[in-house]
Amino acid sequence: MTKPTDETRASRRRFLTAAAGLAAAGVSAPAALADPKNLPPNVADWTRALGEGVGQRPYGAPSKYEKDVVRRTVSWLTATPESSVSFTPLHQLDGIITPNGLCFERHHGGVAEIDPSDYRLMIHGLVDKPLIFTLDDLKRLPRVNKIYFLECAANSGMEWRGAQLNGCQYTHGMVHCVQYTGVPLKILLAQAGVKPNATWLLAEGGDAAAMTRSLPIAKALDDCLVAYRMNGEMLRPEQGYPARLVVPGWEGNLWVKWLRRLKLGDAPWFTREETGKYTDLMENGKARQFTWVMDAKSVITAPSPQAPVKQKGFLTITGLAWSGRGSVARVDVSLDGGRNWKTARIDGPVIDKACVRFYYELDWNGEPLLLQSRAIDSTGYVQPSKDALRKVRGVNSIYHNNGIQTWAVKPDGEVENVEVG
Amino acid sequence: MTKPTDETRASRRRFLTAAAGLAAAGVSAPAALADPKNLPPNVADWTRALGEGVGQRPYGAPSKYEKDVVRRTVSWLTATPESSVSFTPLHQLDGIITPNGLCFERHHGGVAEIDPSDYRLMIHGLVDKPLIFTLDDLKRLPRVNKIYFLECAANSGMEWRGAQLNGCQYTHGMVHCVQYTGVPLKILLAQAGVKPNATWLLAEGGDAAAMTRSLPIAKALDDCLVAYRMNGEMLRPEQGYPARLVVPGWEGNLWVKWLRRLKLGDAPWFTREETGKYTDLMENGKARQFTWVMDAKSVITAPSPQAPVKQKGFLTITGLAWSGRGSVARVDVSLDGGRNWKTARIDGPVIDKACVRFYYELDWNGEPLLLQSRAIDSTGYVQPSKDALRKVRGVNSIYHNNGIQTWAVKPDGEVENVEVG
Repeated sequence: MTKPTDETRASRRRFLTAAAGLAAAGVSAPAALADPKNLPPNVADWTRALGEGVGQRPYGAPSKYEKDVVRRTVSWLTATPESSVSFTPLHQLDGIITPNGLCFERHHGGVAEIDPSDYRLMIHGLVDKPLIFTLDDLKRLPRVNKIYFLECAANSGMEWRGAQLNGCQYTHGMVHCVQYTGVPLKILLAQAGVKPNATWLLAEGGDAAAMTRSLPIAKALDDCLVAYRMNGEMLRPEQGYPARLVVPGWEGNLWVKWLRRLKLGDAPWFTREETGKYTDLMENGKARQFTWVMDAKSVITAPSPQAPVKQKGFLTITGLAWSGRGSVARVDVSLDGGRNWKTARIDGPVIDKACVRFYYELDWNGEPLLLQSRAIDSTGYVQPSKDALRKVRGVNSIYHNNGIQTWAVKPDGEVENVEVG
Repeated sequence: MTKPTDETRASRRRFLTAAAGLAAAGVSAPAALADPKNLPPNVADWTRALGEGVGQRPYGAPSKYEKDVVRRTVSWLTATPESSVSFTPLHQLDGIITPNGLCFERHHGGVAEIDPSDYRLMIHGLVDKPLIFTLDDLKRLPRVNKIYFLECAANSGMEWRGAQLNGCQYTHGMVHCVQYTGVPLKILLAQAGVKPNATWLLAEGGDAAAMTRSLPIAKALDDCLVAYRMNGEMLRPEQGYPARLVVPGWEGNLWVKWLRRLKLGDAPWFTREETGKYTDLMENGKARQFTWVMDAKSVITAPSPQAPVKQKGFLTITGLAWSGRGSVARVDVSLDGGRNWKTARIDGPVIDKACVRFYYELDWNGEPLLLQSRAIDSTGYVQPSKDALRKVRGVNSIYHNNGIQTWAVKPDGEVENVEVG
């Protein structure tokens, strides 16, 4: 690694500051051309032979060298794979769009494999006229395209009592962000005609769990969608093919997959998933119910335990932030466990109820770091520390843990999940 | 199909107008619950058996019912599959993001399968200090996330002399739109130090074609990226894994894949791909050269020959528009071959040099239609008719055909590619 001169370093600093809007930061320059260690040994020279032609892979796949970029499961977490979780490899991704093949899964009865020609969506209950929609009916109706995050209420749920899991894939990997295409739910409900006394809506899935959740009608008529596409193509089977509910900013369990029924009523249904589950057990033994909104949250995705620092010098810290109450207004990064905070650079679109990508660049000399990030959303809400959260909520709950995550970076670049008091 | 009452129809109209911002349009209501033909026969009831659990598909795939949503090739188009094209199935997609597995391919020597540990990017020529970057070097540097369209200069090239191909996958399927993550090229060039007399840059690929193109330095220092990710994950092999050039708004051939070398010089190199190819042969036998920018263009993706209309009644017309000179300001739709134009509804983000999605809703009674769309961009440029384009450019060229596409919708819903005089 050739040391840059002070002058080129200063020039580079000025360039980075002026041209790229970055904080002045030292950059360890890549190797000069002359250094023979930088010429890779035994390189396959692809200029000397024809590669694979088109037509072999009508639907493409990642490079064979990326075979470890996959959703992962935790064997001890659940009794059966049908009611379990796989986690998005956040540490291996960047930008804000999650590729469909890497969106985390959470099923309660396995993946229903609905034949789209069999698909029906029924709207009934307190409506003027019960209706059944085929998939073609849904596809003919006016549709919108919205980029939203989807976070499971139990994301980070295993961290309530302290640092447990060694990687953001496991601590935070029950979130993804895609562009949905679907029909505004209010358009479907308007066709059925919502009776004045209808104040709640039941959404039911067509899977073996027959997942059912109650939603207040105000949310249903606000921004919910019946979506049938993600990132342009039809929903993936594990994401509710051919149609799911999209409930922007609210906990993922409400985003009922394989959606088959919407019933209008005048009270919530108190289903299993909003009584025995998806309630927040407090310190006094009582439980908070209907805590739907996912509060502002963020996590540094790299460096992180699964993505250690490879070398000293210029380092780009990156992560994701999101808020169910609006947009992300700012993200702060701390290098010292929350004593000092610096404003991170948000890059890429800032969209309501979608993930934003943030960066913080620095010249790392090998000193230990206690990395943290905190999101501030458009309502002014500041992501709390885990301890602040525990003071209010105790440690009995599984759900809605949006506390600040700490990663300890060691001098050798390894990273560990730690608690900062 | 139950006929809605006048009252519910009027109410629905008002709702669509007020709540969804749509033009008043009649909607043929879906079937009422009571109609037995709407209860699907022999439906597999997925509530009665557990579906597949998590962990079986670490990297997910589309539903088996979507197996015809694939890139397609045209066998007669090229002599070999290694120097050929596969087309994005635009008619089966929506929104603005193209899933990575469906991004069209255009190779000149097949797909180079670069081992990322072997990857090197050299910057040399008129620089203060030649540099070689490893992939890890690139990944440490400041990066940005940008959603851009990428269109092959030859997209719609087979349509210069008249309507040829029966589907927008073939007429317009050499365009895709993803979120790239990469290093601004100006940051890499600043590290090498561009000499004052460097006015051009040569980009060379590591494939069997050793694809080489010249770029003016102003563009290189403006908005070009060396990108290594698309839609969050690493580039796909057929898109230049592990790193490619991103040249926003300019023809796809310049977006050199498997990028291995950038040379600074004081004149263009006049490579094969900017002399014998990717020049526009005019009527007088002379050729336009260095016609890099992709002018504003649009296409109705559905209905289209591969996506016929299935039934009368409410119909959503949809398509894509883009401009290499800025953003799309407006899209117009014609139902009568360009005699009358109506403003389409753009839905989803409007981003510079990215695709936008547009819709036009109507109540279709089975009358023949001559569907057209035209894009107007932020510079005021209006997408021309094919005849207007032919008057200026003749019909000898392959490249830069951004003329207005016409689809004829027949009373039975079938759609044909036609010319309108």
